Amino acid sequence: MATIGRDRKDAALDAIAELIHERAEDIAAANAADVATATAAGERFALVDRLTLTPARIAGLSAAVRAIRALPDPVGETVRESRLDNGLELTKVRVPLGVIAIIYEARPNVTVDAAALCVKSGNACILRGSRMAVNTNAALLAVVREALAAAGLPADAVQSLDPDRQALAELIADPHAADVVIPRGGEQLKAFLLENSRIPVLAAAGGNCHVYIDAAADPAKAIPIAVNAKVDRPSACNAAETLLVHRERADLVPELREALESAGVEVLGDEAAWATEFLDMKIGLRVVDSLDEALDHIATYGTSHSEAIVTEDEAAAERFVREVDAAAVYVNASTRFTDGGEYGMGAEIGISTNRLHARGPVGLEELTTTKYVVRGDGQIR
Amino acid sequence: MATIGRDRKDAALDAIAELIHERAEDIAAANAADVATATAAGERFALVDRLTLTPARIAGLSAAVRAIRALPDPVGETVRESRLDNGLELTKVRVPLGVIAIIYEARPNVTVDAAALCVKSGNACILRGSRMAVNTNAALLAVVREALAAAGLPADAVQSLDPDRQALAELIADPHAADVVIPRGGEQLKAFLLENSRIPVLAAAGGNCHVYIDAAADPAKAIPIAVNAKVDRPSACNAAETLLVHRERADLVPELREALESAGVEVLGDEAAWATEFLDMKIGLRVVDSLDEALDHIATYGTSHSEAIVTEDEAAAERFVREVDAAAVYVNASTRFTDGGEYGMGAEIGISTNRLHARGPVGLEELTTTKYVVRGDGQIR
Repeated sequence: MATIGRDRKDAALDAIAELIHERAEDIAAANAADVATATAAGERFALVDRLTLTPARIAGLSAAVRAIRALPDPVGETVRESRLDNGLELTKVRVPLGVIAIIYEARPNVTVDAAALCVKSGNACILRGSRMAVNTNAALLAVVREALAAAGLPADAVQSLDPDRQALAELIADPHAADVVIPRGGEQLKAFLLENSRIPVLAAAGGNCHVYIDAAADPAKAIPIAVNAKVDRPSACNAAETLLVHRERADLVPELREALESAGVEVLGDEAAWATEFLDMKIGLRVVDSLDEALDHIATYGTSHSEAIVTEDEAAAERFVREVDAAAVYVNASTRFTDGGEYGMGAEIGISTNRLHARGPVGLEELTTTKYVVRGDGQIR
Repeated sequence: MATIGRDRKDAALDAIAELIHERAEDIAAANAADVATATAAGERFALVDRLTLTPARIAGLSAAVRAIRALPDPVGETVRESRLDNGLELTKVRVPLGVIAIIYEARPNVTVDAAALCVKSGNACILRGSRMAVNTNAALLAVVREALAAAGLPADAVQSLDPDRQALAELIADPHAADVVIPRGGEQLKAFLLENSRIPVLAAAGGNCHVYIDAAADPAKAIPIAVNAKVDRPSACNAAETLLVHRERADLVPELREALESAGVEVLGDEAAWATEFLDMKIGLRVVDSLDEALDHIATYGTSHSEAIVTEDEAAAERFVREVDAAAVYVNASTRFTDGGEYGMGAEIGISTNRLHARGPVGLEELTTTKYVVRGDGQIR
């Protein structure tokens, strides 16, 4: 896969998009079986809903593949270029990472998105979905592999792993089984991988995110940002979990509380809330005496994911940006923007709070490593 | 450390260089004690030699610190900058990695180099040297910490770990003890860390490097490159361990053999040699039938470190560059160039064959991670 040019990879992506369209009925039938099993098992509505592929959602799978096809190929891009004093021509170019294992829950779209992102970036991948989506994933995997073969690419570039715990445990125990593991989904899964994997894991290890409303905050920005950061998608790792309000803006608390509560959010004022990542319609609220106290709070309870300050004071904003240690720091904007699509990366396979390799959204570029290519005419040391 | 500006970090580096100069006699006395112990214990010459600090070598320690001081500060550098459609101003900036653990053998210069590189890049570090150099390292560490304090930086930014196995085992078992572990030194140490560390390890996992002399090789380049790649420093991980010679250039073998043997190298033709990283004045030699066979050999026996082709055939060179999977690939140049200094990175703390984060020499830039800074005026999703 690593040496295949853009044209052929894009042809394979076209074939995947086309074949999903052609096989829409087969895919829907396989999905109906999974949905029936999940419903009979009494799974909660949110899970069954995510699992379900409507005709519109199947069309959406093809559209996502075409969108990834349209992105630039990161492979071969020159990152650094220089001519050394001894005449050597040094270039540092992007090459695929190798084998990427993606572990995810009952979201069939991840099967297609992950395969497409890996094909585009020249990587092989191992997809490990949920048992709940086993028929859907098998149908989608068959389509992807058939399309790869039709485009002259190795079908084995996209493989699946049996959705049982033992197979996963064996995979992540072997440091040579893949070059990186990327979890998509719940905090429990991520914690399990971070604790047990011998393969490096790219993941957001928690998302206890804060919005700090500074003494110099503009209420017309502060309240919409606070509400949006919580309610836009409470289950997302970039959702805010605690609001910090400077004492000089404590006058905003009733209005904030009102805005949140009318959006269906429960506001919790006790210390126990601070360390909790609710991923739900709940938020902690704390009044702090100073920017220092806000920075201390974030350093203590934050998970280095996404942190926001609302302020019109340039010096306070700069201090917050410099001193908060996180993948993404916002001034006068919602934490919800931490996302590959929002950042103009086209698509993402996940978000990382690792300090090594990739910090923030993981897009095509983050699915590459580099190679130094050095051309000479006989140079020796 | 992360928020300290370049001026103060450079002042601390000046203070380290100056204090090494002032305390040269104390350092020499501490070193003499270590050298006496090592000599009495019958340690081999190479080890004792590396351990010994002559007045010139002590002056060299100061010079190395001043050279690191002169390098640009990687912290705060903007890696990416864009204005999103919604008006958000996105920047991706370099920030320090955090805490770097450096594990090394009886080379006192590493104590000073590593501390200086970490100070320059805004990182804290844990230095774990060899028991053999315990007095020398203590003297050097005292100088570094005194200089940091004199420059108003926290002395605790540079700490040491007791040189016993248990302390090291405990350190690397705790994923929160440091952000990355960098070994400097022997293959055994690296293998131990790669096998046991719960903290990511940046290292060259073996250096079974090849020089392939193609059918279209120029002998005037091939023979000097082959000899240099072996003899310039046989113990280095970028030294060549096997020569591959295309059958159409088998006429060069007697001359190659003669050149190597007269430089003191033992040339081994048997298959057993191919998987061996000699790190010594020995080299494997294999005649191959084709470029394909050379590529297969490198894929089978190589360790993805440094690989070279000698050829005047542009198509063969391009195929080699594209298909060989290694941190560094050379055309008509010695594998010995894989080095931060040679690559114009100023200094290196080691070489990595990891696929994640840093592949190749690890310099100041590789000791950083990034942070997204997003500035808005009230944007929500």
